[in-house]
Amino acid sequence: MELSQRQEKILNIVKDEGPITGERIAEKLNLTRATLRPDLAILTMSGFLDARPRVGYFYSGKTGNQLLGEHIQKLPVKDYKSVPVVCREETSVYDAICTMFLEDVGTLYVVQEGGLLVGVVSRKDLLKSSMGNQDLQTIPVGVIMSRMPNIVTCRAEDSLFDAATKLIRNQVDSLPVVREAESGTGMEVVGRITKTTITRAFVELGEGASNV
Amino acid sequence: MELSQRQEKILNIVKDEGPITGERIAEKLNLTRATLRPDLAILTMSGFLDARPRVGYFYSGKTGNQLLGEHIQKLPVKDYKSVPVVCREETSVYDAICTMFLEDVGTLYVVQEGGLLVGVVSRKDLLKSSMGNQDLQTIPVGVIMSRMPNIVTCRAEDSLFDAATKLIRNQVDSLPVVREAESGTGMEVVGRITKTTITRAFVELGEGASNV
Repeated sequence: MELSQRQEKILNIVKDEGPITGERIAEKLNLTRATLRPDLAILTMSGFLDARPRVGYFYSGKTGNQLLGEHIQKLPVKDYKSVPVVCREETSVYDAICTMFLEDVGTLYVVQEGGLLVGVVSRKDLLKSSMGNQDLQTIPVGVIMSRMPNIVTCRAEDSLFDAATKLIRNQVDSLPVVREAESGTGMEVVGRITKTTITRAFVELGEGASNV
Repeated sequence: MELSQRQEKILNIVKDEGPITGERIAEKLNLTRATLRPDLAILTMSGFLDARPRVGYFYSGKTGNQLLGEHIQKLPVKDYKSVPVVCREETSVYDAICTMFLEDVGTLYVVQEGGLLVGVVSRKDLLKSSMGNQDLQTIPVGVIMSRMPNIVTCRAEDSLFDAATKLIRNQVDSLPVVREAESGTGMEVVGRITKTTITRAFVELGEGASNV
């Protein structure tokens, strides 16, 4: 939303002198309080200003971008996660590459019995191991994968924003979505968040189609 | 921004009966026009309603999500693009993989003299070619790359939203940012937009730090 010139002026007055009453703001602008009422209501309703009875208006410290940010931070991982594609530690690097192409994913999660997460293998890991002149059919994924607990994960109840932040900070392409295993030890893989997921969410937001 | 119950009611009345005057809305809600003024101002300023003098209020057809979408559609590619990493058609697949690791990118743009774009080679292309038991040192990138004009590109003046939409629709990880070559024939590569770029923009928006 774009603010009018008068609203910008009000915002600056409150920033400098808040808490300040509506009457005092009106005086400073040489306007009546009635004239200002809609502007003050807009600034309050949209979160730029806070108002406290018998105290006056004060600046919430939030800009339009911060308000947009709050909206984005509400999107939950559980509404965006996709199905995880998994393999076993004993799977050969060759078979892992095949699975990656057949399922058209960039990362495989390596699991044990019961879907317990033990590792992650990325397209980058596989490409690296295919450069050495080894026989890809004989190297097991367990040898080249990143291993727990050195794996960045997220939870279904996390925000998509937190997941995206982890992808960027840790320079990984994908996060397994995990939950405590029923047995009580280890993490079970229940989903997948990738940069594709985030790009899709960005497009949805741009289309105005997201359900928040 | 969240609407109050009364604002939701007004929105519904205008949706059903717009164009409608402020007076008529007030009557329907058993309120005075003065009471409604701030709400109508908020709904108009924030884009939910349009108002035309001597006609009245009508519904703009925009939801809060659409307004957020408009904000996102304003981000330009030129503010987000990163530096392109390039190689030549004659570069060996082996050397291309090395460049990819050294520069830590997922896609190389293949260029001719003068930076003219002739192809794109992705981590996926390189992984595929490394599976056949060929000597990676002897295969040139030109043999395995995607070749112009079958390459999805974008321009510095495009919106990041349009670029993200192309990434998703065409199922690619990266778009070269191009401009008409000075010679008048072909496209010069001037940047790179990837799913990482979009993820980073998403995080920035969530932080409320984007400059729009």
